[in-house]
Amino acid sequence: MSHNSFGHLFRVTTWGESHGPAIGCVVDGCPPRLRLSEGDIQPWLDRRRPGQSRYTTQRQEPDAVRILSGVFEGLTTGTPIALEIQNTDQRSRDYGAIAQQFRPGHADLTYELKYGIRDYRGGGRSSARETASRVAAGAVARLVLGPDVKIRGALVQIGGRAVDRARWDWEEVDRNPFFCPDPATAAEWEQDLAEVRKEGSSIGAVIEVMAENVPPGLGAPIYGKLDAELASALMGINAVKGVEIGAGFAAAALRGEANADEMRMDDGVVRFGSNHAGGVLGGISTGQPIVVRFAVKPTSSILIPRQSVDRAGAEVDIMTRGRHDPCVGIRAVPVGEAMVACVLADHLLRHRAQNPDAPSEPRLPRN
Amino acid sequence: MSHNSFGHLFRVTTWGESHGPAIGCVVDGCPPRLRLSEGDIQPWLDRRRPGQSRYTTQRQEPDAVRILSGVFEGLTTGTPIALEIQNTDQRSRDYGAIAQQFRPGHADLTYELKYGIRDYRGGGRSSARETASRVAAGAVARLVLGPDVKIRGALVQIGGRAVDRARWDWEEVDRNPFFCPDPATAAEWEQDLAEVRKEGSSIGAVIEVMAENVPPGLGAPIYGKLDAELASALMGINAVKGVEIGAGFAAAALRGEANADEMRMDDGVVRFGSNHAGGVLGGISTGQPIVVRFAVKPTSSILIPRQSVDRAGAEVDIMTRGRHDPCVGIRAVPVGEAMVACVLADHLLRHRAQNPDAPSEPRLPRN
Amino acid sequence: MSHNSFGHLFRVTTWGESHGPAIGCVVDGCPPRLRLSEGDIQPWLDRRRPGQSRYTTQRQEPDAVRILSGVFEGLTTGTPIALEIQNTDQRSRDYGAIAQQFRPGHADLTYELKYGIRDYRGGGRSSARETASRVAAGAVARLVLGPDVKIRGALVQIGGRAVDRARWDWEEVDRNPFFCPDPATAAEWEQDLAEVRKEGSSIGAVIEVMAENVPPGLGAPIYGKLDAELASALMGINAVKGVEIGAGFAAAALRGEANADEMRMDDGVVRFGSNHAGGVLGGISTGQPIVVRFAVKPTSSILIPRQSVDRAGAEVDIMTRGRHDPCVGIRAVPVGEAMVACVLADHLLRHRAQNPDAPSEPRLPRN
Amino acid sequence: MSHNSFGHLFRVTTWGESHGPAIGCVVDGCPPRLRLSEGDIQPWLDRRRPGQSRYTTQRQEPDAVRILSGVFEGLTTGTPIALEIQNTDQRSRDYGAIAQQFRPGHADLTYELKYGIRDYRGGGRSSARETASRVAAGAVARLVLGPDVKIRGALVQIGGRAVDRARWDWEEVDRNPFFCPDPATAAEWEQDLAEVRKEGSSIGAVIEVMAENVPPGLGAPIYGKLDAELASALMGINAVKGVEIGAGFAAAALRGEANADEMRMDDGVVRFGSNHAGGVLGGISTGQPIVVRFAVKPTSSILIPRQSVDRAGAEVDIMTRGRHDPCVGIRAVPVGEAMVACVLADHLLRHRAQNPDAPSEPRLPRN
Repeated sequence: MSHNSFGHLFRVTTWGESHGPAIGCVVDGCPPRLRLSEGDIQPWLDRRRPGQSRYTTQRQEPDAVRILSGVFEGLTTGTPIALEIQNTDQRSRDYGAIAQQFRPGHADLTYELKYGIRDYRGGGRSSARETASRVAAGAVARLVLGPDVKIRGALVQIGGRAVDRARWDWEEVDRNPFFCPDPATAAEWEQDLAEVRKEGSSIGAVIEVMAENVPPGLGAPIYGKLDAELASALMGINAVKGVEIGAGFAAAALRGEANADEMRMDDGVVRFGSNHAGGVLGGISTGQPIVVRFAVKPTSSILIPRQSVDRAGAEVDIMTRGRHDPCVGIRAVPVGEAMVACVLADHLLRHRAQNPDAPSEPRLPRN
Repeated sequence: MSHNSFGHLFRVTTWGESHGPAIGCVVDGCPPRLRLSEGDIQPWLDRRRPGQSRYTTQRQEPDAVRILSGVFEGLTTGTPIALEIQNTDQRSRDYGAIAQQFRPGHADLTYELKYGIRDYRGGGRSSARETASRVAAGAVARLVLGPDVKIRGALVQIGGRAVDRARWDWEEVDRNPFFCPDPATAAEWEQDLAEVRKEGSSIGAVIEVMAENVPPGLGAPIYGKLDAELASALMGINAVKGVEIGAGFAAAALRGEANADEMRMDDGVVRFGSNHAGGVLGGISTGQPIVVRFAVKPTSSILIPRQSVDRAGAEVDIMTRGRHDPCVGIRAVPVGEAMVACVLADHLLRHRAQNPDAPSEPRLPRN
Repeated sequence: MSHNSFGHLFRVTTWGESHGPAIGCVVDGCPPRLRLSEGDIQPWLDRRRPGQSRYTTQRQEPDAVRILSGVFEGLTTGTPIALEIQNTDQRSRDYGAIAQQFRPGHADLTYELKYGIRDYRGGGRSSARETASRVAAGAVARLVLGPDVKIRGALVQIGGRAVDRARWDWEEVDRNPFFCPDPATAAEWEQDLAEVRKEGSSIGAVIEVMAENVPPGLGAPIYGKLDAELASALMGINAVKGVEIGAGFAAAALRGEANADEMRMDDGVVRFGSNHAGGVLGGISTGQPIVVRFAVKPTSSILIPRQSVDRAGAEVDIMTRGRHDPCVGIRAVPVGEAMVACVLADHLLRHRAQNPDAPSEPRLPRN
Repeated sequence: MSHNSFGHLFRVTTWGESHGPAIGCVVDGCPPRLRLSEGDIQPWLDRRRPGQSRYTTQRQEPDAVRILSGVFEGLTTGTPIALEIQNTDQRSRDYGAIAQQFRPGHADLTYELKYGIRDYRGGGRSSARETASRVAAGAVARLVLGPDVKIRGALVQIGGRAVDRARWDWEEVDRNPFFCPDPATAAEWEQDLAEVRKEGSSIGAVIEVMAENVPPGLGAPIYGKLDAELASALMGINAVKGVEIGAGFAAAALRGEANADEMRMDDGVVRFGSNHAGGVLGGISTGQPIVVRFAVKPTSSILIPRQSVDRAGAEVDIMTRGRHDPCVGIRAVPVGEAMVACVLADHLLRHRAQNPDAPSEPRLPRN
């Protein structure tokens, strides 16, 4: 058991603070002889990198990843892959107020209560900067899953404004600074966020991640359920307050006959008429696309003063200057994709261990 | 790693199928010298027991739990506690159709695809019957947490109809067959469910669980986050499709200043003006009540025919006769409470290991 | 993490005390569709069963195992297999002295110091009776490994007297009450043990277990080494004080050229000229027979009085009446085999997860 | 589960290859507010560092450790501690033969069979260089245990020659290049090793590690036994072939009355007349010194030609030039100490989680 590791057979351990010398992770359990170089990881980190639009923090970091172990002559060796990213933009500054005060809605307070100490520089361990390690690990997980498995995320809501699913176009996601699949909504979000920024406020968001061509059989009954581990993976991302799969909370309002994803056969393979399940039944993948969503709260670092307390137990008013994402949900898109990739890679290995001869698509009869 | 275990230091392993001779669990890691007898567990099982109203399955099981180990002269010994419940109502019947066909929305198909075999009798391992073991383990977890920690659940929505929170009364929860905190809504649900039953259909629900007097400091940054493990615990309950904490999905629509739970001091203890966080910040408990909700889909076993396929790969129409819960969400209330109790007990032990001198309430200054 | 579980993918959790109602275990992670019935387990339990000769405890237990879950129509289903053995010979007796006093060399004291309570009846959890669960789990592990993998143990030393390896005959092992591969030594042990018994004493032993036809590649570098996990598995058996593999402690006295197991090719397969390694190099199996030995101390329950203390902190002289093995090492033979089987089954699954295309014999070139 | 992690609550994950850019580890679970700097770790690494005498490899590495995370203002924060050591002496060389051939007794072959690839440069992951990470982690573990717990190791045998325990003097250990507690034997070893080196051979050794002032209660029954985890930790060190505790293998030859460690009271504290148990009974520490020994085989890299095979499946004769330890057992002393420290730190946290009020010495009555 580790509080800073994730996964079982494909296992990621991350370390590092926002303003320490570096951050990084160790990816253990990766199968051997996969072609891997920094070039396979860097593009995913670049998607998450801050400072690329005015809608994300202006911190400038190249986030250049370096592979320190586990790869030989361009191939993974089966031994642990150490990935490291230097922190270059640790601007020397006065942390005075933030060192002593607790931002409402922030981990400042709880680290202090738990440990009696916290590295307050840039949020220390609780900084969203840690998610760079997740994205790096996710890039390796994608290689484990292979090119057929396609994991894509999109921002589907900012504040009260959701995308119009009728206009969903995956091609659009990389054409706007919001990972928005609907250009019309993206334009509206621009205006919404301009206002949020002007007011020194922040705002929440919802992200959707879809994984296609996932083999059936991943996951396990009861406590190794694929959806339970996806929920843990996504809820564990900074600022996430809710997770759902398939129909999600809307399933509560459905009747059984409406919720049922009917099945037909297509040349020996099961095809489904709908996907309320989000690709998982009984904790095990069906072969349908896996569809998950998660809600991100607004950043707690805002310029609008709030009532708070300090380390000495005095009451204070607090406002947070500095470089912060007005909507952390935006950069959560590549992070969500990475976490889904890590969960699926882990479960692919776990499934293969117990069921080496299971089919890679929902084929019947099974044998 | 085990697919049928839950928790790390307070660790529960469950086993058993719906129509096998028995089900049960092993609770490992329980501290010694806690007073424990069957009488501490049975009342919680009785709350979950089927056949108590016409809104739950008519299967009749006494669900009498027996302690087989780990208790000596009425006290826990620190060794594993084996709990066992006999299956008494395994009525001999013809499973013909269900043995060969896959209910849409049910684990039937995925067990078959993963394992190439399934115990179809009453749903086998995927039956909600397994949750009796969770409730039993949760009763032990409550003892570990001690009498101050109060964990209570309620059904807050059936189908499209939610309770009126202005009428919330915890006393009402045990006065109606729905665990509903609002008697007016309970009356409406009675009518709603009567209709659902008459139509041979089923319907979804939302459950809320609150844990009060939880010490601050439980949980851990990054991958041992308390909310991530609560999410996993609740998403792992049969038929759950979504989990949220505090403001949950509604947080996406909030501005930072609205979401911030402001803080004041009260005789050295931090008091919060609101609880959008649901009692967890940065993955660590704040000392506020922990508030989680989860959505349960409608039962997939319905009398309304649906298109499906069978083991041989033939297309069939399927309808499920037999004893089924029209709204499985109802009996999920005690199960959700139990899972929350298990997560908290586990984290209490984990926290104590690393931080034995941390305060038991949010007290400042910390030292 | 569980203190009462063993293994990762093939995972065994045991529970139960010597004089409680039953003991048992949950075997999780077993692949599906293996043919399994009580008849596959019982013979192994019968080998370990007490009361079969005058050289083991006279406690009479049928040790009849019952499968409570995880098997359907004679096949494993991939879900947890619960195995249970009733304790039938819990003779009502006065535990007076033993309840209050601590036997030197026994877990009595340490349970008390750790937990502040202990189930003193027959040794409670620390009784060798727990090893019946290990043997039952080992029987399932053998099925996972398949019929080609042959795991056999023998007693190679009692007290100062070791077998003559020149006379080693596996057929003899089941022909004498000592699992002794050398009938001449068995005859001498009879006399040795008669004397030990007459004096109310006890005596130590060494057991050797060999696993043949183990595929290469099992194990993993650094902290998942096959030999490290075998060491843990065997040292974890009651009363074991030492574990070695291959040349073992004798390797300390060897020169590099003598210790080297030279290699030649035989139709694409590597053959070794010797087996000082005991079948493991760098923590990974070579394909040679795995050979491990472990030393068992003499039973601490003896009739010869020893100085000790009691729960109240008073000094006492203690002698232990009752039914005890004069040489617990004898019944440790089937237990050692079972633990080796469990470790190998676990590593077979772990290896398959990461390296599904690795060869099943030491074949070169590898691809 | 991770193949490159060790421990549960105090958890160490190592990474890195002998001739890659760096090696390192992540230490997770360390309690907060311990004073820690590189200066607390470096001295332990210096003890293990190669090139300090002619009895160890002539590879020259400063082995300078750097703390990259988890420490703030000189104190641990409770978050993961990343430790990194640059590899500076990666001399560019021709690995020709060693790249294609398998040294008898070396992990070369098994990595190839398992993974189909290996980083052959300096042994890659299987190099003893990895043990520097263990020593660094062990230094942190010592801080967790506190200054009272004293962990010391010594070399007690090289080849057939053991120290004379009558001359044992801990002060001597740091006065000779062998960590030998007996100067007379050290002098003899000098001559023995000179001969071994001259012949291009290598030789085995036995190491003993003692941990004093360990509180009682560490460890757990059945599968979390302290001695089982010590066995795993020590057997997992490169080249180790045997592990024993207390009387060890010699216990097999003992009678029960001789093996019993008799007990008397001394002002409420249990005192023992002997320590055949090696400080552990029933898997749980007694409060006596913990005494373990492990045997190290001779290095497999020798100048004396041996028969072997190559990657292509051809038969070859192999001899290994280069810088190698003639007796790897020497440098295993600080490694053994470090592994014992890690196991004890992990169990201290595990024990505290379940039994926060257990006594720190073997005090009776317990309450």
